[in-house]
Amino acid sequence: MYHTLLLMLLVGATLSKHPEEDQKLKSIRDRSHHVARSCAEIKSKYSENEDGLYYLTTENGVVYQTFCDMTSSESAWTLVASVHENNIHGKCTLGDRWTSEQGNNPFRPEGDGNWVNMNTFGQVEGSTSDDYKNPGYYDLKAKDMSVWHVPNNQRVNDWKQTAILRYHTETQFLTQHGGNLYELFKSYPVKWMAGAPLRDNGPSIPIVYDYGSRETTKAFYGPYAQREMEPGFITFRAINYEWASTAICSGTKPKGGQVDAYCIGGGGFFPEGAPQQCGDFVSFAWSGYGTHQGWSVSKDMLESAVLLFYR
Amino acid sequence: MYHTLLLMLLVGATLSKHPEEDQKLKSIRDRSHHVARSCAEIKSKYSENEDGLYYLTTENGVVYQTFCDMTSSESAWTLVASVHENNIHGKCTLGDRWTSEQGNNPFRPEGDGNWVNMNTFGQVEGSTSDDYKNPGYYDLKAKDMSVWHVPNNQRVNDWKQTAILRYHTETQFLTQHGGNLYELFKSYPVKWMAGAPLRDNGPSIPIVYDYGSRETTKAFYGPYAQREMEPGFITFRAINYEWASTAICSGTKPKGGQVDAYCIGGGGFFPEGAPQQCGDFVSFAWSGYGTHQGWSVSKDMLESAVLLFYR
Amino acid sequence: MYHTLLLMLLVGATLSKHPEEDQKLKSIRDRSHHVARSCAEIKSKYSENEDGLYYLTTENGVVYQTFCDMTSSESAWTLVASVHENNIHGKCTLGDRWTSEQGNNPFRPEGDGNWVNMNTFGQVEGSTSDDYKNPGYYDLKAKDMSVWHVPNNQRVNDWKQTAILRYHTETQFLTQHGGNLYELFKSYPVKWMAGAPLRDNGPSIPIVYDYGSRETTKAFYGPYAQREMEPGFITFRAINYEWASTAICSGTKPKGGQVDAYCIGGGGFFPEGAPQQCGDFVSFAWSGYGTHQGWSVSKDMLESAVLLFYR
Repeated sequence: MYHTLLLMLLVGATLSKHPEEDQKLKSIRDRSHHVARSCAEIKSKYSENEDGLYYLTTENGVVYQTFCDMTSSESAWTLVASVHENNIHGKCTLGDRWTSEQGNNPFRPEGDGNWVNMNTFGQVEGSTSDDYKNPGYYDLKAKDMSVWHVPNNQRVNDWKQTAILRYHTETQFLTQHGGNLYELFKSYPVKWMAGAPLRDNGPSIPIVYDYGSRETTKAFYGPYAQREMEPGFITFRAINYEWASTAICSGTKPKGGQVDAYCIGGGGFFPEGAPQQCGDFVSFAWSGYGTHQGWSVSKDMLESAVLLFYR
Repeated sequence: MYHTLLLMLLVGATLSKHPEEDQKLKSIRDRSHHVARSCAEIKSKYSENEDGLYYLTTENGVVYQTFCDMTSSESAWTLVASVHENNIHGKCTLGDRWTSEQGNNPFRPEGDGNWVNMNTFGQVEGSTSDDYKNPGYYDLKAKDMSVWHVPNNQRVNDWKQTAILRYHTETQFLTQHGGNLYELFKSYPVKWMAGAPLRDNGPSIPIVYDYGSRETTKAFYGPYAQREMEPGFITFRAINYEWASTAICSGTKPKGGQVDAYCIGGGGFFPEGAPQQCGDFVSFAWSGYGTHQGWSVSKDMLESAVLLFYR
Repeated sequence: MYHTLLLMLLVGATLSKHPEEDQKLKSIRDRSHHVARSCAEIKSKYSENEDGLYYLTTENGVVYQTFCDMTSSESAWTLVASVHENNIHGKCTLGDRWTSEQGNNPFRPEGDGNWVNMNTFGQVEGSTSDDYKNPGYYDLKAKDMSVWHVPNNQRVNDWKQTAILRYHTETQFLTQHGGNLYELFKSYPVKWMAGAPLRDNGPSIPIVYDYGSRETTKAFYGPYAQREMEPGFITFRAINYEWASTAICSGTKPKGGQVDAYCIGGGGFFPEGAPQQCGDFVSFAWSGYGTHQGWSVSKDMLESAVLLFYR
């Protein structure tokens, strides 16, 4: 069987007008033989060190393909999810998988619940054009996180260089929270009425910048929001003044309860000006689309997907 | 090529700190070499006998991964679908793939038509958190069915032990209906105005319990519904008094036409109190959410996905 | 490892009651070893010449399965997408991925943007029951296109013989537009206010019929629409009198601006009788469902998916 296959491949290579391209494609395809649960494992077991798409296998045997950042650190980062705003005018409508696709609804305080279930959605190559969640989100046992803010509709190979912000944690905080966000958010439920702002927020972890800085992070947000945040952190389950939960404040630590203006994802109900705040990018356009006035983030931030990596 | 791969695997195993885990993952990953159309075939051809995820191949060559129950019988059961209620407040909205995601609409009597088409959706690991349908639903030629009612958001490895009900048929009824539900429902269209209640219901097949009993089955439904059903059966295409079709009465045989209170899935239009009855779990919360009063099922039943297996 | 596998396969074959079926399934499954970016490459490298499902690999290493038409020409056609109308009554609702699933909205002039992003959706076997887009849509470097109009819910093996129209281009026009529709539509944005009808339409390419004719093409459309079209072409980004863009006029070249009656897909806003024209099949039922009167297409056309191939 394999002799025949090898023969066919040789014949194919002979016939081809582009032997180099053929060889490259075959080499990429051979990655499907890897058996590993994380990009870090692939790097160490198979000596792969190029950024790109690789195959991972979960503990239960689910095989999936995702992007590995093999070059930003000695180890490697595994892309597990992206939060993408497909329509800031839609208030918890289709495409708001990280809050609710079923409207702003106090009877569904946790919204769609994707922060703490095993649903997966989207495709890795489309993860800057749509929400994305792969099995690594709940399968990996990780220590740190990395976040890239990548302009919408970028091709995989351009993500790194076009990102408007890239940063990561180094405190190994995930080891104290079950090893991934699935477990972390079980301890800090992302839902309406989970607690009071500031007092009941989840952990804020200091970040180290790979591209950008505390200053550029702050500058992407609205001027009113800037007064309320401390950049240089990633914060989980931040609560607003109406006791609505957001999931991640990427790049910041809240100093008040207007977190809907600078944190993403969340539960299924946001009381203020209902349903104005409901959606994956919450109230990032509260003072107009990309105006960068009042509470509104800049157009660059509004039109970038937030890519989440584990290591 | 393969020598290199073997070498890499050996090197990987040598470097690893967790050789046992590595071996287990590799063993699970090797299941991707199986060539079989059903779990039963995998069990007999490859002597696999652990419950878990395996790869199947359809007649047309589509490869997919699903859960195999290898231990409940001498043969094996293949998971082909799950019916999950994501939002009982949403009346034929997003996530109601087994009725209609396009509202309650007399102009779409068959609703989304997923009982009789080749669309597939969801992922096996998320099948207790969302609707699931794999190609086995229409590809397998089966004889019997098994049904598990599993609490929402359970991990694959906990399904069996957490199920509130498990039962199966033994009459080989599917051989008389084309070998699967895709063919069965072509003979018994799941649509509004397909016929009259009781008179035009599809087949009711006796079941054997693997966990639970006729008594516990009955007890999960609302007290009014209990008076109208005979437990110990699985019934297909049961029709209600307004001539709306449901798809499956799991565990029961109707003795009247209030089938919307204890049968799941269906067509695209339910006239009574429109649109109150439209949705994957139809009117399971007619008398309030999980109240277990009047027509409402218990909270346990309302918050469990219904997993469908073939053998 | 491989000896064990071969042994297992031999044992399996020995046990099986259906050795021929086993052999056929194995042969189809072995297609997963192919490494090629297009069906044409598979045909030339591996001497495969049967219509059916094959595995392709993108430049980035994404592996996907699609349908190859190996028999209509010396080379081969790769299925990359289908446009399917799931609910002509729904005006830019769920399932209208080739226009907008977020309603008819002047603030989203490009709609969901799937003509020019890397999102993918649907499954090949379900591509006559739902919208379908695979990575080949943006990955292939093609020269020509082929289009099949296949009745909804047909099985893969019946597509070719049940198609109501099949035709292709031979001018190699895609070489001048970046090699695929993803690039072509970057030059001709499918959005509201992209330009004026006729004057700013994209290219119209002459077609050669594989099944059907200029006459039968015309006859499928409404009588009013017939007066405005010239059959025998495929036209891209045709604009209507209200400056709304459609994506593809399959089989025709517009001679006026009522293109919504005979072109499919488009941007996110259609002003006339808003939201009446918004949807994947635009205003194909403007004068009633399948009436074949006024502007309405025939029932056969309305209930057929449009399958797009590259070569």
